[in-house]
Amino acid sequence: MNKTVALITDFGLKDHYVGVMKGRILKELGDLNFNFINLIDITHEIPPYNIRKGAITLYFSYKYFPTGTIFLVVVDPGVGTERKAIVVKTKDYIFVGPDNGIFTLIYEENPDFLAFEIIEEKILKPPYSETFHGRDLFAPIVAYILNEKPLEEISVPLSKNNVNKIEFLFPEKTSRGLKLSIWDIDHFGNLITNFHKSMIKHKFKIFVNKKEVPLIKSYGYAKKGEIVALFGSEGLLEIAIREGSAFEVLQNPDIEIIWEE
Amino acid sequence: MNKTVALITDFGLKDHYVGVMKGRILKELGDLNFNFINLIDITHEIPPYNIRKGAITLYFSYKYFPTGTIFLVVVDPGVGTERKAIVVKTKDYIFVGPDNGIFTLIYEENPDFLAFEIIEEKILKPPYSETFHGRDLFAPIVAYILNEKPLEEISVPLSKNNVNKIEFLFPEKTSRGLKLSIWDIDHFGNLITNFHKSMIKHKFKIFVNKKEVPLIKSYGYAKKGEIVALFGSEGLLEIAIREGSAFEVLQNPDIEIIWEE
Amino acid sequence: MNKTVALITDFGLKDHYVGVMKGRILKELGDLNFNFINLIDITHEIPPYNIRKGAITLYFSYKYFPTGTIFLVVVDPGVGTERKAIVVKTKDYIFVGPDNGIFTLIYEENPDFLAFEIIEEKILKPPYSETFHGRDLFAPIVAYILNEKPLEEISVPLSKNNVNKIEFLFPEKTSRGLKLSIWDIDHFGNLITNFHKSMIKHKFKIFVNKKEVPLIKSYGYAKKGEIVALFGSEGLLEIAIREGSAFEVLQNPDIEIIWEE
Repeated sequence: MNKTVALITDFGLKDHYVGVMKGRILKELGDLNFNFINLIDITHEIPPYNIRKGAITLYFSYKYFPTGTIFLVVVDPGVGTERKAIVVKTKDYIFVGPDNGIFTLIYEENPDFLAFEIIEEKILKPPYSETFHGRDLFAPIVAYILNEKPLEEISVPLSKNNVNKIEFLFPEKTSRGLKLSIWDIDHFGNLITNFHKSMIKHKFKIFVNKKEVPLIKSYGYAKKGEIVALFGSEGLLEIAIREGSAFEVLQNPDIEIIWEE
Repeated sequence: MNKTVALITDFGLKDHYVGVMKGRILKELGDLNFNFINLIDITHEIPPYNIRKGAITLYFSYKYFPTGTIFLVVVDPGVGTERKAIVVKTKDYIFVGPDNGIFTLIYEENPDFLAFEIIEEKILKPPYSETFHGRDLFAPIVAYILNEKPLEEISVPLSKNNVNKIEFLFPEKTSRGLKLSIWDIDHFGNLITNFHKSMIKHKFKIFVNKKEVPLIKSYGYAKKGEIVALFGSEGLLEIAIREGSAFEVLQNPDIEIIWEE
Repeated sequence: MNKTVALITDFGLKDHYVGVMKGRILKELGDLNFNFINLIDITHEIPPYNIRKGAITLYFSYKYFPTGTIFLVVVDPGVGTERKAIVVKTKDYIFVGPDNGIFTLIYEENPDFLAFEIIEEKILKPPYSETFHGRDLFAPIVAYILNEKPLEEISVPLSKNNVNKIEFLFPEKTSRGLKLSIWDIDHFGNLITNFHKSMIKHKFKIFVNKKEVPLIKSYGYAKKGEIVALFGSEGLLEIAIREGSAFEVLQNPDIEIIWEE
């Protein structure tokens, strides 16, 4: 059977860390029990230690992967401390990483999730590193799961109430509408807000720094240099400038939704 | 059978876009009809919306891939507008992407190409995004082709005269030789001109900003810091500085070929 | 059988070079004699021509890969000159690259290595490039080895004394301890010194710019902004600042080990 492992880290691509983590997965696997595995990079450019950005990136990505995909997510400022290593199972997917809130949005979208705390001493083989658990702890966990070994032998169940979560801001109500926050800035400089199209109640106008901007269907409908709003590929309202960077021009603008009467 | 999919985009590696597009290809594929696929990144660092650079990168790359490789090329400023999604077939390869000229140099080198316009509503499954056709349109097309389903069921033939092309500058004749333009700047800062070694007619000298520079066989023959010319790996004349960046030092210099008497 | 090829280059990810080198490996392989191969990127962001950094990166990585992995390492300022192309075999691994010292630390850790000089004209097929041996020379060598063809038909043995090496600094003795040098700076800005934990003889203190810094177990035990020392994932002493960049703050500091009485 073909298996997919998808990776999110803050390791960057300059160093050897990502490659070594993949090497270790393959080394632990051996040639048994699988036909081949697809190691797919989602991104390794999460800003260092930015758990929030890692959580959003995972949230925007996971649904598009094949059923059974294992997500290895290592943004881990607490590496080597008492923070837990966990495995989270939803109906369709498996998630492996530190218990620092990185899976918050997975919990929100999959309330029936199951969580397991890894018993580290069952996985860490000396000499192991206290600073590179991606290689020495998380990669072997992924290989263990790929080898279809029983999770209960290396973990204990963790109650839903005991997993760590981080806070995500949702739009704030104002007298006439909603004040939005920026959740993310993408490679093109588009400002991705926290307003999801499922939150639309009435007709509305969009204001950026108190000026109305048009809501367009896609980037191609904007004039070059024009500030526009559109619902992006994840259903979130984005502020964009065609063939330019909204972030460079606007930085962190006021963004407001005004419901029309 | 092993199959290769090679990818060129302007998505960058900071965001989740590339990973999600790959995930979607694998998800649509399922486990059927193939042994495994190699997903090979050519580059995802095409400058945003730079169709020209995407076209050159594809042109420099495709011949070195196995017969049957599918090239997925998404540099798509017109995403979500009326621009067509196309599949182009040459004797050895298949190309998938927007009809915005990105395949211009493929058409030039393969005049017997066949082009097909995708009927988008046969591929796009709601809810789809108008801003991320890499994931929602092009990835499923690639999976459809990998699954060896009949292209005629999702497309109509497109006449060779109706595909979009962009212009590529060729060297300009001067009284004594040729004035060259820069087609590309690589990672090392080498300036890659539009003079191909097949254009050599006589003995010639090379002038950069009116000063003659030596034509050497390879970088290793230059002195550190010396400005030199050489025919690069694609047969195009490059201006280079050994262990330095010609682009940083020279920016956009005058480059001339003078035929010798 | 599954096979792994791990890659280190200074090609960067902006250009098509890495993708084309991989494409060429797959093209030369054909579908024969293997089930599938894993092409794993260790890094392509070695600073241009920095053989030393390439050697360190390889050294930090190779042991974590499956037995039989082929390492293709192309940091090659002498491309196209008389420098040799070599294959190095150790008990568990195979290394392919230029003979410019990039394998120095492999030789040190594996004194029983065997080296082979490639007879270039047996591999280079016209038209080949003098500037892109990654594609035209090294990729076909890797494919040749993957195809399990006999190495003696394309190479001659090279004596251990005739391989090129580069120098690596080890800690300098001072009156009271050791003066360290920095071998590497990682993505997080951590300063990786040349002091390996196997060099510990007595209890010791660590001084950075004459001020003592604490030795901690892992990053998570530091206070935000504090300068600390710890043994990193490769067993080398690192100077780090939690959630900050030691390199940005300290640049190239004096680092000293003082043995305690």
